[in-house]
Amino acid sequence: MKALVIGFGHVGQKIAEIIIEKRKYPGLASLDLSFTGVYTKTRGALTDHSGIELPDAIQQIRNEGHFSRNSKQYTDQPLQEAIDTLDYDLLLELSTLSITNRGEPATSYIKQALKRRKHVVTANKGPVAFAYDELSTIAGNNNVQLRFESTVMDGTPLFSLAENALKGATITRLTGILNSTTNYILSQMGKGKDFNEALMHAQDEGFAEADPMHDIEGWDSAAKIAVLANVLMQAKINPNNVKKVGISGINQHQIKNLLKSDKRLKLICTAWREKNQVVARVQPEEVPVSDAFATVEESGACLKIETDLMNPILILQDSPTVKDTAYGVLNDILSIQQNMC
Amino acid sequence: MKALVIGFGHVGQKIAEIIIEKRKYPGLASLDLSFTGVYTKTRGALTDHSGIELPDAIQQIRNEGHFSRNSKQYTDQPLQEAIDTLDYDLLLELSTLSITNRGEPATSYIKQALKRRKHVVTANKGPVAFAYDELSTIAGNNNVQLRFESTVMDGTPLFSLAENALKGATITRLTGILNSTTNYILSQMGKGKDFNEALMHAQDEGFAEADPMHDIEGWDSAAKIAVLANVLMQAKINPNNVKKVGISGINQHQIKNLLKSDKRLKLICTAWREKNQVVARVQPEEVPVSDAFATVEESGACLKIETDLMNPILILQDSPTVKDTAYGVLNDILSIQQNMC
Repeated sequence: MKALVIGFGHVGQKIAEIIIEKRKYPGLASLDLSFTGVYTKTRGALTDHSGIELPDAIQQIRNEGHFSRNSKQYTDQPLQEAIDTLDYDLLLELSTLSITNRGEPATSYIKQALKRRKHVVTANKGPVAFAYDELSTIAGNNNVQLRFESTVMDGTPLFSLAENALKGATITRLTGILNSTTNYILSQMGKGKDFNEALMHAQDEGFAEADPMHDIEGWDSAAKIAVLANVLMQAKINPNNVKKVGISGINQHQIKNLLKSDKRLKLICTAWREKNQVVARVQPEEVPVSDAFATVEESGACLKIETDLMNPILILQDSPTVKDTAYGVLNDILSIQQNMC
Repeated sequence: MKALVIGFGHVGQKIAEIIIEKRKYPGLASLDLSFTGVYTKTRGALTDHSGIELPDAIQQIRNEGHFSRNSKQYTDQPLQEAIDTLDYDLLLELSTLSITNRGEPATSYIKQALKRRKHVVTANKGPVAFAYDELSTIAGNNNVQLRFESTVMDGTPLFSLAENALKGATITRLTGILNSTTNYILSQMGKGKDFNEALMHAQDEGFAEADPMHDIEGWDSAAKIAVLANVLMQAKINPNNVKKVGISGINQHQIKNLLKSDKRLKLICTAWREKNQVVARVQPEEVPVSDAFATVEESGACLKIETDLMNPILILQDSPTVKDTAYGVLNDILSIQQNMC
């Protein structure tokens, strides 16, 4: 398959590296993927209908900080034009979420590609949090697939699990710890740091953005539970409808008192059915240490799935890396490849 | 689909009840299943090519302790003959594991059905632990499916997850708590009971069999890790090849000392790759309370999956009931139905 790639940061580069080293991974033998276009926001773009040289593209970014204007593959063609004219089978949308822009411009790019009957894989939760219903309808009408495994809990195959492995069961409730910055801060506060120290630590470790309010006020968590609720519970919500309480009001004193009573504080996302509707909220909640949620420390994450046909199951992820996110995208690409056969 | 059912204990009856109450479960709308034969070991058998009346069959077993000889559907036809002659699409093998008989007679029944080009779903781990390679080859040659979701961690969709949701990833290691009797006993010992008291408690609660040595010496755990290793890691092992240390040597003193140092004792099953081979063991191991494994109490279970492409993920199951096992079987049946279309 030929892919047009938007975004070539950590995740895009890691996917390129895995493709280069494909022989190390026996399960990827059937992966058939070349990049015919790679677009970045500020670092230029490359196109080549016979496939971009990936080691060279990575080299350019790492050495020069941008794609090289001297490269034969360098292009000035605007992205929107490329989406409509380039030769590709699959749009890989790897840009980061903009909550203020309600998932734009990613959502528009995805629509454009779907309408051209191209499959889409995105690692950006914005489009699915704000426009899942519309995007999945367009995908269906054009007989192409829209996949987004790595938008929540990185590579952990939540959507694939629900789509393929929970046959016949109806999900009644989802409960999770889904944002690594806030969980990291709360973990550090448990070790004695105050909020600001813990936040700085998170920024040093690369978990928190320079402007971390997006995470701390619960917007990232809200976007993720909205994605889960929209896709797995057929909700029609967006992050604005999710009732949010963040962690900026939490102080060391509270955390210490909880520790004494064998409890932990976690930023918990929940979605549940209420009178033919699905509602969702994000709020700090006390969890007893004997609960598996309490063992989710640092940048770990978890999701509890409750259904009408079995007892709850819980999926935990140990501190994921960029490789996990890259794997989620590859998992999606392999699903598309398989469904095409 | 028409099913020939072997075994009509708790699981078989629960499946029948769910079918009767199908309208309560929106996700089961497409389930198309009737029982054309139900065989038990000691409580008689019913057959009806137009479908057995399930409420009536349950009633007979519950009121009389066996199927009624007065029933028009009662049959004296031997099971082996029925497998070869009855009108059915699917064999539901729901008998319990016999370790001493290496999964027999279930394995032979399954072979017989597969060779007649009938799909097979089994909740009995014996055939998959002892003869997976042979059975899956016969199924492949006859172009039918063999499924066994509820053999490990009841309805938790482990095999469906690995088959459908972990595309491209190669499993490198599996670690789990897979036997409820021993986990229940160790949990109770943590609360102050000695081994024998805890065991009696487990028997009272219905977790442990009258002869519980099968669980306590690690045979059930060994069978389960063998199933997982055979199916998910292409191992060719059986429970006899799994190195086993059970929990009969554990005393209150040890458990108390561990509690003081914030540790728990768990019976851990592990399978891993070693020089082109897969090896497996079962043994009691110390787990820190901060580890999610330590939160698996009473009859809960968990499995950690490590792969070459992402960080470990862990799946936990809260104390399952017979409904979970029944769901695992229904999940398999729906997969077969879907793959037939």
